[in-house]
Amino acid sequence: MKTVVQAIYRVRSDARSIEERARAIAVEQSVEMPVSAIEDERVRADIVGRVLAIKDIGDGLFEVRIALAGETVGSDAGQLLNMLFGNTSIHDDVVLADAELPDELVKLFGGPRHGLDGLRRRVNAGRRALTSSAIKPQGLPAARLAELAQRFARGGIDYIKDDHGLADQVYSPFAARVEAITAALRMVAERDGRAVRYVPSLTGDLDTMRQQIAVAAAGGVDIVMVAPMIMGFSNFQRLVRENPQIAFMAHPTMAGAARIAPPLLLGKLLRMLGADAVIFPNHGGRFGYSPETCRQIAQTALAARDGLRPSVPVAAGGMTRERVPEMLDFYGADIMLLIGGGLLEARERLVEATAAFVAEVRNYRYG
Amino acid sequence: MKTVVQAIYRVRSDARSIEERARAIAVEQSVEMPVSAIEDERVRADIVGRVLAIKDIGDGLFEVRIALAGETVGSDAGQLLNMLFGNTSIHDDVVLADAELPDELVKLFGGPRHGLDGLRRRVNAGRRALTSSAIKPQGLPAARLAELAQRFARGGIDYIKDDHGLADQVYSPFAARVEAITAALRMVAERDGRAVRYVPSLTGDLDTMRQQIAVAAAGGVDIVMVAPMIMGFSNFQRLVRENPQIAFMAHPTMAGAARIAPPLLLGKLLRMLGADAVIFPNHGGRFGYSPETCRQIAQTALAARDGLRPSVPVAAGGMTRERVPEMLDFYGADIMLLIGGGLLEARERLVEATAAFVAEVRNYRYG
Repeated sequence: MKTVVQAIYRVRSDARSIEERARAIAVEQSVEMPVSAIEDERVRADIVGRVLAIKDIGDGLFEVRIALAGETVGSDAGQLLNMLFGNTSIHDDVVLADAELPDELVKLFGGPRHGLDGLRRRVNAGRRALTSSAIKPQGLPAARLAELAQRFARGGIDYIKDDHGLADQVYSPFAARVEAITAALRMVAERDGRAVRYVPSLTGDLDTMRQQIAVAAAGGVDIVMVAPMIMGFSNFQRLVRENPQIAFMAHPTMAGAARIAPPLLLGKLLRMLGADAVIFPNHGGRFGYSPETCRQIAQTALAARDGLRPSVPVAAGGMTRERVPEMLDFYGADIMLLIGGGLLEARERLVEATAAFVAEVRNYRYG
Repeated sequence: MKTVVQAIYRVRSDARSIEERARAIAVEQSVEMPVSAIEDERVRADIVGRVLAIKDIGDGLFEVRIALAGETVGSDAGQLLNMLFGNTSIHDDVVLADAELPDELVKLFGGPRHGLDGLRRRVNAGRRALTSSAIKPQGLPAARLAELAQRFARGGIDYIKDDHGLADQVYSPFAARVEAITAALRMVAERDGRAVRYVPSLTGDLDTMRQQIAVAAAGGVDIVMVAPMIMGFSNFQRLVRENPQIAFMAHPTMAGAARIAPPLLLGKLLRMLGADAVIFPNHGGRFGYSPETCRQIAQTALAARDGLRPSVPVAAGGMTRERVPEMLDFYGADIMLLIGGGLLEARERLVEATAAFVAEVRNYRYG
């Protein structure tokens, strides 16, 4: 029995053309040549993509379900992306809406090594929602970022992440930043007994990221942030496999505006590759995702599936303290709330603003 | 004097909102927090993105030019992408239209190590256009792919590339494929004296690609294909730097439908990172790029710029022999024409069809 990857596309088309368009996508995402020119019987039978279903979903859109041979994907995450959407991403009438992957492949990727339970345990959070903030702006030296981190920690935040713009810049080199921040947080941890975590952002090529993980781990860091769309899926897969003790938070930078449906990309694929937490732009903030899209991202990240651990959805992108109750009503307890700029605006009252955010999340009556 | 990266966006907006929208992008792509909450004078002066110009280009679109501090990018190609478009890619009203990069950064990346002249020299092509084809369908074993490669070679093609779906699958593992194909091509080279080149496609993480380059180089291969949008810009940058003797052909898979303007992504950025040749979907084939977009891709890849070698534009995506004169009229001699399926359709007359394609390109009267 051959394994099959099912790719589900939403295609803009008229009713007359959709069958031909669907067949063209099936060919593009498999053999990429005229089927009539394929002499090999096995390739025609097993490798050429097959249109399984076409559904008119209204507004000139069709949902097209295509079967691709699992053999063409093999075991590499980059090749999975290549086969699911590669050349078809260049067509502006198609989005990749969903994918159904064979159990073998899901098991091979393995999903989060820590996930929701692991991230709660690290900060002794019980069953409540998790809190997070971001140190920024970039341009500050490491010592100043460490001060901010310390104030977030004093306010009682769980996870303090680098802004995704922080890399290995001259004004705040990665190693100096990790050293300054972990030292600052250790002081708070020792004094207040808080299990706060720093989440440094990794950048660069695979080797550079490995070195950064080594530096971070030496400083006691056990969770890092990565940008899978920039580092490449295969390298993310590799880094997760090489570092079972490290948790990974995935950032959506370069995720594009829904050419791949966000619940699929952030909730399903990144989780499968091992993201213990996935940041997404919550509705009503700086980005345009609808409440329904956000709900689907969270549900997909958390859903019981294939024996994978749930990944923590991280609602972010211009959130404020005022929205905490509404967000918790919307998402429930299985969420991490990330407020960055909305806390930093408090400036000299940053500790107090953070503490108020933290209290709001702790005191919320979870259903 | 600080270096500045200029990012040029096309933004859909109404006239009343565009100034605020432009400022929001400048903030998103730099400090990612309310500017009012930034206490540090240096960050406000040097790091916060600045709107340089806003131009109404009609149809509800505005061209917005933003200055970003070169310091925020540093020297990493992934971070360049992160700063140019990262979070803004999540907005569906913005495309990244162009970028102007400081000389220092362009020099640091270095551009093609071989480029147009190098690729012509390898196949003794003089000043004519180059020819290329692709071996496929995937699903064939290595020996069958080698047969196809040999027939292309006998027909006189310059560059025989892997289909971009070929990876390291069980039915045609990378090492076995390289061995079979290089052996087959050596036979043709020795008998006919042809300087044909095989272009294997690299997949997987950075380490896997390094191993694949080693295997390929041991078989005499001196040019490979990569998919920068899947492998990640930083890893592409690294591989180019580590392998100055190897030429790189970039494939546009996962390049998306123009969220980053194709001339910028394919012609400018990939060339700067070291792509000696950039494949793009020619107009009138299976993809929707306009003639004007294609002309711009080719011009951008070739333009005299910053001391970079020209990168070879490779027109592909459903091309046919019949279109050769028209394509050469359109692009001139500084082009590589890639015909894959259009030759494979000739089946048992593949050598003859290839020879006819090659003759057409050789005999064309270049202006």
